Amino acid sequence: MTHPSQSYSYASFSPSAPPMPESLGTSRPNYYNQTNYGSVSSHGYPSFPPGTHPDIIRTFQAVDNDRSGFIDETELQRALSSHYQRFSLRTIRLLMFLFKNPNDSLRIGPKEFAALWSCIGQWRGIFERFDRDRSGKIDALELRDALYSIGFAVPASVLQVLISRYDDGTGRRVELNFDSFVECGMIVKGLTEKFKEKDTRYTGSATLTYDTFLTMIIPFLVA
Amino acid sequence: MTHPSQSYSYASFSPSAPPMPESLGTSRPNYYNQTNYGSVSSHGYPSFPPGTHPDIIRTFQAVDNDRSGFIDETELQRALSSHYQRFSLRTIRLLMFLFKNPNDSLRIGPKEFAALWSCIGQWRGIFERFDRDRSGKIDALELRDALYSIGFAVPASVLQVLISRYDDGTGRRVELNFDSFVECGMIVKGLTEKFKEKDTRYTGSATLTYDTFLTMIIPFLVA
Repeated sequence: MTHPSQSYSYASFSPSAPPMPESLGTSRPNYYNQTNYGSVSSHGYPSFPPGTHPDIIRTFQAVDNDRSGFIDETELQRALSSHYQRFSLRTIRLLMFLFKNPNDSLRIGPKEFAALWSCIGQWRGIFERFDRDRSGKIDALELRDALYSIGFAVPASVLQVLISRYDDGTGRRVELNFDSFVECGMIVKGLTEKFKEKDTRYTGSATLTYDTFLTMIIPFLVA
Repeated sequence: MTHPSQSYSYASFSPSAPPMPESLGTSRPNYYNQTNYGSVSSHGYPSFPPGTHPDIIRTFQAVDNDRSGFIDETELQRALSSHYQRFSLRTIRLLMFLFKNPNDSLRIGPKEFAALWSCIGQWRGIFERFDRDRSGKIDALELRDALYSIGFAVPASVLQVLISRYDDGTGRRVELNFDSFVECGMIVKGLTEKFKEKDTRYTGSATLTYDTFLTMIIPFLVA
């Protein structure tokens, strides 16, 4: 495998069809105006970006119980979790934090949901590519290769700490399911984005004041 | 109140008597050799530092069910929680992370427990000093003053993010109980210590590589 020469970079994902959770009804009234591409539809609900896959819109509608046009963390958890793939609230909160609208930290709307859904679909593809034995789990080395493949050169020592939270203490090799993989990936992605904001010339190092340092990190801790 | 002139600094706490949780029996055999001040007692159990208050030793013994000389997170939670003061597992994990022995990330021994207990006692004193109306809660301003009083000059914007996790969404002013106060305090204390390791000359800013940045932060995220 060819490793990227820079110490970190961004992937340009090509959008892929997102996984479709099961048990999502399609009989709900379609109260989001799919042809109105403004930020608020003619019915007063926030609407989806142009070209949003109908499955994404249906999934959002199926969990937006109060028809507010926004979903909270438990609704997002329901939307993303299916029989095959359940997400912990910890991962959901991290996703909410990374994709949230700056004006509403507790809920996300159609635009953020569409971006998040697309991102999860891309990480699903990466996971399946590196889960070579189709066990539904990947180990530390596969995680490193997976992150490397999309431009994140994370030191082995950091990865060891990152996956230590999934160590059950039995001495067995740590393996990550898709939920944990997304959690690790989002931590690396989120921190890298924060770091890059302070390292605009891609030198691989950044000078931070104490205030900036706290401001960068604390949102991750409270997510 | 006089604010410290430096942007951050450390408090030199004077040890105070720690709070004594209720319902801690004293009839357990005293299997820790309190007069042996080495790292392992003559009975093979790790022992407490010289001068450790007997209440601390009894509390540790009362929760160390398997007599291993080490306690895990749920045992620590029981040791610290009493009728008046319960700690969430989130706070407990953060405490474990900050006080752990580098060789054992899942358990703490007598030495770490004694340090942790003493620290909680000190934070209890600070909490009570700034909870001026004795409501058992402090608000954002009192939190800022409390952190300032022990040398942590945390920007108001950072504090807002820090306490946002306790916002119940009702629009009411956020107030912290002692558990949440300790959690906030430990986040600030832990991150400040990490930053200071990279700012040894106290300039208020530090240059970090991408690897160092990740290595500093990720342990907090997985704690």
